[in-house]
Amino acid sequence: MDTFSFRLEATCGTARAALLTTPHGTIPTPAFMPVATQASVKALTPAEARACGSHILLCNAYHLALRPGVEVVEAFGGLHAFMGWDGPLLTDSGGFQVYSLGDLRKVTEEGILFQSHLDGSTHWLTPETAIRNQEGLGADLITCLDECLPYGAPRDALEQAVARTQRWAERCLHARRRADQALFAIVQGGHDLALRRASAEGLVALNCEGYAVGGLSVGEAKDLFLSLAQFTALLLPTHKPRYLMGVGAPDDLVRCIGMGYDLFDCVLPTRAGRTGGIYTHRGRVDITSARWRVERGPLEEGCDCFTCAHFSAGYVHHLFRAQELLAYRLASLHNLRFYQRLVAQARQAILEGRFPAWQEAFLHTYRPTNEEARLAQHQKRLQSRSLREETWH
Amino acid sequence: MDTFSFRLEATCGTARAALLTTPHGTIPTPAFMPVATQASVKALTPAEARACGSHILLCNAYHLALRPGVEVVEAFGGLHAFMGWDGPLLTDSGGFQVYSLGDLRKVTEEGILFQSHLDGSTHWLTPETAIRNQEGLGADLITCLDECLPYGAPRDALEQAVARTQRWAERCLHARRRADQALFAIVQGGHDLALRRASAEGLVALNCEGYAVGGLSVGEAKDLFLSLAQFTALLLPTHKPRYLMGVGAPDDLVRCIGMGYDLFDCVLPTRAGRTGGIYTHRGRVDITSARWRVERGPLEEGCDCFTCAHFSAGYVHHLFRAQELLAYRLASLHNLRFYQRLVAQARQAILEGRFPAWQEAFLHTYRPTNEEARLAQHQKRLQSRSLREETWH
Repeated sequence: MDTFSFRLEATCGTARAALLTTPHGTIPTPAFMPVATQASVKALTPAEARACGSHILLCNAYHLALRPGVEVVEAFGGLHAFMGWDGPLLTDSGGFQVYSLGDLRKVTEEGILFQSHLDGSTHWLTPETAIRNQEGLGADLITCLDECLPYGAPRDALEQAVARTQRWAERCLHARRRADQALFAIVQGGHDLALRRASAEGLVALNCEGYAVGGLSVGEAKDLFLSLAQFTALLLPTHKPRYLMGVGAPDDLVRCIGMGYDLFDCVLPTRAGRTGGIYTHRGRVDITSARWRVERGPLEEGCDCFTCAHFSAGYVHHLFRAQELLAYRLASLHNLRFYQRLVAQARQAILEGRFPAWQEAFLHTYRPTNEEARLAQHQKRLQSRSLREETWH
Repeated sequence: MDTFSFRLEATCGTARAALLTTPHGTIPTPAFMPVATQASVKALTPAEARACGSHILLCNAYHLALRPGVEVVEAFGGLHAFMGWDGPLLTDSGGFQVYSLGDLRKVTEEGILFQSHLDGSTHWLTPETAIRNQEGLGADLITCLDECLPYGAPRDALEQAVARTQRWAERCLHARRRADQALFAIVQGGHDLALRRASAEGLVALNCEGYAVGGLSVGEAKDLFLSLAQFTALLLPTHKPRYLMGVGAPDDLVRCIGMGYDLFDCVLPTRAGRTGGIYTHRGRVDITSARWRVERGPLEEGCDCFTCAHFSAGYVHHLFRAQELLAYRLASLHNLRFYQRLVAQARQAILEGRFPAWQEAFLHTYRPTNEEARLAQHQKRLQSRSLREETWH
């Protein structure tokens, strides 16, 4: 596959900096992919996402297949033309989305039978339809259909899911027709080390263009998440891109870059932004709090984002209080720029061989969002099951 | 008042083109003022409002006095600095807003006692507080407190309101302290020609810097609205700016420019935009309709707005269907550019002495929004009485 290459530029411990070349451009890694679930990074234009420092966006094949429909996107010449983004794109197969549907889906060996969250209509998502949809959408990086289980699933269920994910990956490889898309298989295995190893080894043997790690950040405690992420990274080939799905908070991102992951995606910068959560080097702050009411300075001193260059924190506070639409954009712009600057700084530190010191300095200053608040947020998300919300990767 | 001037450049019939100079810049008129009720043109940045061709924005002193509070805006150095707009601003005194409060307000000779729509707290809005608030906010053009009655109010009530509006205007003039703001008095008189004349003559005798016409576009039929607007325009001095409040739909705007009005404001381009109403030279269309699903062309052929330059109508349709925040911005950008281009074309036609032909050509092609739909929309707006919505002028 000549249209793709993954060239390692430097390693620093297990962390690595690389260049991932796709038909729509080269992505310097580690890279953070903003989430454009429905072919739009919420509240932002593609040009704004790029101005924040984004090199690749992630879209959800599940959502887009239901609305507007793959055939509509094809009529526009594919997802890039449809959404006005000429850089690299990744699509998620939809496995995680249908897992979130709960009672609305049934998993069999053939695939997943589910009811649309939009109109209740019944659809099959199989390895073959997942590939067909993603080939129609035309992203540069596509993903296998996998079976994702909730945190706490029993071992035999996890074991079956690993085996099924393996068989589905084989069917995905068999089903693909396009040569200009890189296919990523998704390692499962829940929180069982032996199953993680089995899943990784089985999928690596298939020689996919890249590997994603799924089934993490699904409600487990942070320490457990980190140790599993670390363990799984070491099972993946060094010469292929590694994508840690749905991660994460800034401190998690920095730690997982250190483990050797290359690609990340998360709704946090935009979703937190829409509820007034503003990322700074000291942690996330709540801009809706009264203490910002007459703050004439920017959201964060020294920030080079559009929002901090043009507006005071007090004005952004007012926009949130007044529920003005501009609030969501300004907060998302700041947060996304914070993420992209963070990842760019990590990359630079790797290239210059000083990643451990950089990481330590960042983690020393950054105060993570309270663990309890984090798990409560996750539970709320699962319970709401509102598929209109941007609640998955 | 040296900081202001209103220089007529050309007239064409009763239509006129002029330059209105303020401390924050010169406004070529006729001019359309986008509504920034709460110090934000909904979904747009100030730079975007300017890029659409806007020279002046309108804010609501009523809203801003309640939230964030005049003293907060003053702490930021005034409204221009607070919202990041360095061009001219106009503030509305709040008379129309408290009129919309219905049972939540009581009008006496002293002023208007009302309950905040935000927290139910009680406030006095008097001519003196209206001026004090607007001086604190610091707009270039400010307005007198007036008494606005609903359509169909009895003649004696209208007569009393005209007399009170006159006395309140005198108190406003007496209360002002700043010399760098132009004060506009507001002509009332409902739909009674004699009262309109009495109101205009009384206020003109006060020698204000400009005159606004209020109490129109409050639910009356279109023909009645137009004849009253025409009648009232002729009562106002030719050498001062005339501001027709809350107007309006594109065809009304074009007709009222022909009558000799200079300034207009209306929520239509942004409010219609947020519900999928897209203005074109053939009339308003509904972008959420299925017929746009695979439309690869722009919202309107030949449009030079940001949205039409970057995105297909089909993509905007998708964003509305998916309830993506970007939808509201893209539609608002298109509509506001449509309005500003229309007003700029009208101005050019006046300068070149061909306004009647231009007007006729526009009105020949433009299909106005159905009268019934218009009145229904107005009733809905009054009934909702939701002051969180941008429902006035």
